[in-house]
Amino acid sequence: MNMSMNNLGIVKRSIVRADRAVVAKLAQFGVATIHEAMGRVGLMKTYMRPIYAGANLCGTAVTVLLQPGDNWMLHVAAEQVQEGDVVVAACTTDNDDGFFGDLLATSFRARGAIGLVIDGGVRDVKDLAAMKFPVFSRAIGARGTVKATLGSVNISVVCAGAMVNPGDVVIADDDGVVVVPAAIAQQAADAAQAREANEADKRKRLAAGELGLDMYKMREPLARAGLKYID
Amino acid sequence: MNMSMNNLGIVKRSIVRADRAVVAKLAQFGVATIHEAMGRVGLMKTYMRPIYAGANLCGTAVTVLLQPGDNWMLHVAAEQVQEGDVVVAACTTDNDDGFFGDLLATSFRARGAIGLVIDGGVRDVKDLAAMKFPVFSRAIGARGTVKATLGSVNISVVCAGAMVNPGDVVIADDDGVVVVPAAIAQQAADAAQAREANEADKRKRLAAGELGLDMYKMREPLARAGLKYID
Amino acid sequence: MNMSMNNLGIVKRSIVRADRAVVAKLAQFGVATIHEAMGRVGLMKTYMRPIYAGANLCGTAVTVLLQPGDNWMLHVAAEQVQEGDVVVAACTTDNDDGFFGDLLATSFRARGAIGLVIDGGVRDVKDLAAMKFPVFSRAIGARGTVKATLGSVNISVVCAGAMVNPGDVVIADDDGVVVVPAAIAQQAADAAQAREANEADKRKRLAAGELGLDMYKMREPLARAGLKYID
Amino acid sequence: MNMSMNNLGIVKRSIVRADRAVVAKLAQFGVATIHEAMGRVGLMKTYMRPIYAGANLCGTAVTVLLQPGDNWMLHVAAEQVQEGDVVVAACTTDNDDGFFGDLLATSFRARGAIGLVIDGGVRDVKDLAAMKFPVFSRAIGARGTVKATLGSVNISVVCAGAMVNPGDVVIADDDGVVVVPAAIAQQAADAAQAREANEADKRKRLAAGELGLDMYKMREPLARAGLKYID
Amino acid sequence: MNMSMNNLGIVKRSIVRADRAVVAKLAQFGVATIHEAMGRVGLMKTYMRPIYAGANLCGTAVTVLLQPGDNWMLHVAAEQVQEGDVVVAACTTDNDDGFFGDLLATSFRARGAIGLVIDGGVRDVKDLAAMKFPVFSRAIGARGTVKATLGSVNISVVCAGAMVNPGDVVIADDDGVVVVPAAIAQQAADAAQAREANEADKRKRLAAGELGLDMYKMREPLARAGLKYID
Amino acid sequence: MNMSMNNLGIVKRSIVRADRAVVAKLAQFGVATIHEAMGRVGLMKTYMRPIYAGANLCGTAVTVLLQPGDNWMLHVAAEQVQEGDVVVAACTTDNDDGFFGDLLATSFRARGAIGLVIDGGVRDVKDLAAMKFPVFSRAIGARGTVKATLGSVNISVVCAGAMVNPGDVVIADDDGVVVVPAAIAQQAADAAQAREANEADKRKRLAAGELGLDMYKMREPLARAGLKYID
Repeated sequence: MNMSMNNLGIVKRSIVRADRAVVAKLAQFGVATIHEAMGRVGLMKTYMRPIYAGANLCGTAVTVLLQPGDNWMLHVAAEQVQEGDVVVAACTTDNDDGFFGDLLATSFRARGAIGLVIDGGVRDVKDLAAMKFPVFSRAIGARGTVKATLGSVNISVVCAGAMVNPGDVVIADDDGVVVVPAAIAQQAADAAQAREANEADKRKRLAAGELGLDMYKMREPLARAGLKYID
Repeated sequence: MNMSMNNLGIVKRSIVRADRAVVAKLAQFGVATIHEAMGRVGLMKTYMRPIYAGANLCGTAVTVLLQPGDNWMLHVAAEQVQEGDVVVAACTTDNDDGFFGDLLATSFRARGAIGLVIDGGVRDVKDLAAMKFPVFSRAIGARGTVKATLGSVNISVVCAGAMVNPGDVVIADDDGVVVVPAAIAQQAADAAQAREANEADKRKRLAAGELGLDMYKMREPLARAGLKYID
Repeated sequence: MNMSMNNLGIVKRSIVRADRAVVAKLAQFGVATIHEAMGRVGLMKTYMRPIYAGANLCGTAVTVLLQPGDNWMLHVAAEQVQEGDVVVAACTTDNDDGFFGDLLATSFRARGAIGLVIDGGVRDVKDLAAMKFPVFSRAIGARGTVKATLGSVNISVVCAGAMVNPGDVVIADDDGVVVVPAAIAQQAADAAQAREANEADKRKRLAAGELGLDMYKMREPLARAGLKYID
Repeated sequence: MNMSMNNLGIVKRSIVRADRAVVAKLAQFGVATIHEAMGRVGLMKTYMRPIYAGANLCGTAVTVLLQPGDNWMLHVAAEQVQEGDVVVAACTTDNDDGFFGDLLATSFRARGAIGLVIDGGVRDVKDLAAMKFPVFSRAIGARGTVKATLGSVNISVVCAGAMVNPGDVVIADDDGVVVVPAAIAQQAADAAQAREANEADKRKRLAAGELGLDMYKMREPLARAGLKYID
Repeated sequence: MNMSMNNLGIVKRSIVRADRAVVAKLAQFGVATIHEAMGRVGLMKTYMRPIYAGANLCGTAVTVLLQPGDNWMLHVAAEQVQEGDVVVAACTTDNDDGFFGDLLATSFRARGAIGLVIDGGVRDVKDLAAMKFPVFSRAIGARGTVKATLGSVNISVVCAGAMVNPGDVVIADDDGVVVVPAAIAQQAADAAQAREANEADKRKRLAAGELGLDMYKMREPLARAGLKYID
Repeated sequence: MNMSMNNLGIVKRSIVRADRAVVAKLAQFGVATIHEAMGRVGLMKTYMRPIYAGANLCGTAVTVLLQPGDNWMLHVAAEQVQEGDVVVAACTTDNDDGFFGDLLATSFRARGAIGLVIDGGVRDVKDLAAMKFPVFSRAIGARGTVKATLGSVNISVVCAGAMVNPGDVVIADDDGVVVVPAAIAQQAADAAQAREANEADKRKRLAAGELGLDMYKMREPLARAGLKYID
């Protein structure tokens, strides 16, 4: 079978990363704000959770496609990492094994990586928390993995339900993980900024007791939809 | 179809809340104690978890029935909230979207609400924790919601497997969420108090090494049931 | 039916516990390290989680087989506990009810138990955390249990997917729960020690920027497996 | 504690069943149609499935509240069954044990019951299929149950997320299970009939190639919502 | 916010479908064979199941992005369907509601669609089975949906974990659902054919009692990996 | 590390199978009956389901421990199979990949195997059904597996929550899968026979309208437990 047909066994070395200044700007906003600003796309599934309270990250994606129970490609990915990258690892099937621990975190950090997003399990979470190396994962699992089967690095992957291309911006915090395609990162950052400014004013009015019903002018559409008040 | 047949599109404004003094009394006890005191009824499913460590609440229910991916009715509910209320939101189907965030929390608090119990997702959890606004939910989800389809406010709802009527007392802590019907709130509070007093003595005896087998006189019924000790 | 056919309704009083010195040695290592040292066997499923951050334990197993919604056998087990034991409770079926709370924890501790691993629910988790009584469970559930049906104590059980025999060493931390058969505990402890020593050196080299690809000599096998680098 | 506070340990003998003629009328329509006709309320969770292909039922509810791993109350319920009843069994907690098998089915049928809806497990499914005794359940489970702890019969229950009162009409088919409160059964049957008539015409037009876009006049609202067609 | 940033509210009318002859060729092979032939990529999650035994399909994808509880875009998609298309519907979040039933199936078929793959719920499954309209879905759910919020048609979607572009070939049978990108459809069909030919010979040898150990020459690599035979 | 410490990389060739006559006797009874007869032990989790309606099997276990995404050991197991064996495959972690298909089934059957029980995925289910090769599995999954990492054959395994030793009797039907240890197989068969005889009489009496309440003499214990009848 011709290798060009599939996307296994490939490492792409040259990828176009989102602009650093834009990444820095996006880092100022939370996942929920950016997701809204993008028009509600790019969010990973809600099972992706930080391994320690307060973990958060914003960086450019180096993508990895793993095989179940096998973390070989994470070692391959380490070499492709540059300053400010986030490794985003998908797996060909659902798997909670511990693909990643403190040794790989040490290596990733030494190469410039600022965190990991993995649709799989991780271990050594106490050490990772002590290192303050942010990880968002589907599970915590102590089971070790082998190094036997090829996946790929820096191909397009589907990670926890979201499409991720190498170089995309990945932002993660307590609310989850969102992916911003590199091509629209500037636009998304601008929209997030506008949205945030807008929210401060709304917050003040709501805190003063004004109702969303009035502030958002919902009474008329609610009545038109047939809402009935009874006593 | 006659609207009276179903319970969608309705806001009930006048509800009978459990007595404030009774709510205050119930607030002194934990969920497990109250649940036992009531005869082990009224508990929500175990997937309902606090969004930050130590969150807890005790108040009277303003109920909401939501549609998936739509938080319109939470805005409608805000107007119905009175001092000491807990908003209890059910959804017509399983949905992890982020129905609620810091703006709605600001509004709810301004109207007197002391917390939220929602069989759905919430977001802005870092902000909610900073505000110390207690929320118990099925998920944390950043995905925003629309305002397009009617649900209801202050009807009877099934929330995470438990029946909740407006005005019922809702208590939530690290152990879960329990609902006390307004009509039996005084009785439940009294029973909880009796139980707690009882527990202090038991704790002392067990700490001194006395076995539950003896304290609860279990040896005879165990033998009768056929328990065999072997070496 | 002959009782010898099954393993219900039995309490075994005399069990052979792993050697104390070996248990103490194993206590120095994490779950992931021990699991690797044993050749990647003996791990419980990843749904077993600590009920408070930082909980960990290492001790000898007193095993319990529970019936759903029934914690009678935990009371029976309390009498069999000796200093340094961990109660390991399986259930005949999946059940999230609150089999265990602060009263039983008080009793267990008074008898010498240092923690609990339970494939079921627990409650009073705030109190348990305050007591620093480590518990690893499948769920937090406030629903109380009855004392009506026999299970067994100190028989072989399957707990969260792992075989546990009475006297085995059970180690649990943030990464999960692992079981070391008493017969190989010394061997496992030695292997864990060797592994840990080995890791310190690797960590240093990775921190200095050396790649796992080179340190583990992966480049040649990767090429042989067909990995292709493209630009 | 006063027994009146809770709803365990009670059998209500006299219940008001929905009118037979109305039940017969509702039996002509499918679950999806009735659910729509009622305004989209009363549906059980989608995990409730028939145990054999083609199973379906429509009858009046005799409700049961079970304890986990305990089917005592199903025997109590058998006595309360009348011709045309459906036993609707909820459980105080999630449990997949085999509460029901061919012996109970034989007994239920002998008493007049036409089927079972149970938020728990059932067994002997081959026999049940051969008997053509329709059952909708959350699981198939061979594990037997004990008869040790009280639940109740003919109280209000929450079964698979739906509120069911004794005497309500319960309809189940390949699409799921829906509950029609006795008080609105006539109204629901009429609405279902109207809806079905309406559907026949729509089906014909759609089969002829007419688009829903045109038949339901959606083009204008879609454009107003901002839908853009591109090439 | 600039609409070009996101992919909601868009209908792409002109898409490039995989060649008809290639689709016909792929239709001769099963999902497992095609998945292998492609190098084990493109498979949807295993929760996607046929709604009736024996359902299968092979066609070109018209993609849909749905909002939870809202099937508006399926009506929009109907107009874009051409002879031989399969509608592939993703949803912005996990949702088991009944987005699709016999009326939409009638419309889809009238427009030329040969089936549906939907990461959501469907209803009227008895009618759909009678129509022999193949559907693969995550759930069967009777709950109806609204028509209120925009999604998109013929954009790239992630459906049940697989990336699908409009015009791709989608094949589904008892084993699951696989997506073949239009650009490599010919290559995949050829590889599947080669694989199938190969399998016939293997089947014959295995049926004659030859071991895979010998046929695939596994004994030597197994020994090298350290496999030990004991008695 | 000493290989004797763990149980990976081992094939045990000589195992003691349960007596053929006893297996034949057990084959006459259903899973639910045998499970009851054994005192309610040995049942696998309810997620284990037949891949086609009516599949059933009864034979002696050849056990396999698989690695995720890797079916190498199934080929190794084929050689160990004897007439009347059932291959029982556990996996070191949860995995839904397609470990098994029609080629392996052909090989297994040629060697004498009568079926497969696997805590993993299988594929080619249409072919397996056509072959009438019974399989009970956790999932149907088309994803192929590699042959790269050692597991073991004929060691003790935990499969879907049940302990299985090589040579044990495994019975599976529509109700699930149960394991009978070889040492008690005769006893279990006798108990099952007694139970079945007993059931025929009960069935007749229940069919005649006698209540379980009376037949099992439950009225007195129910009253003693506090059951109250109200009108």
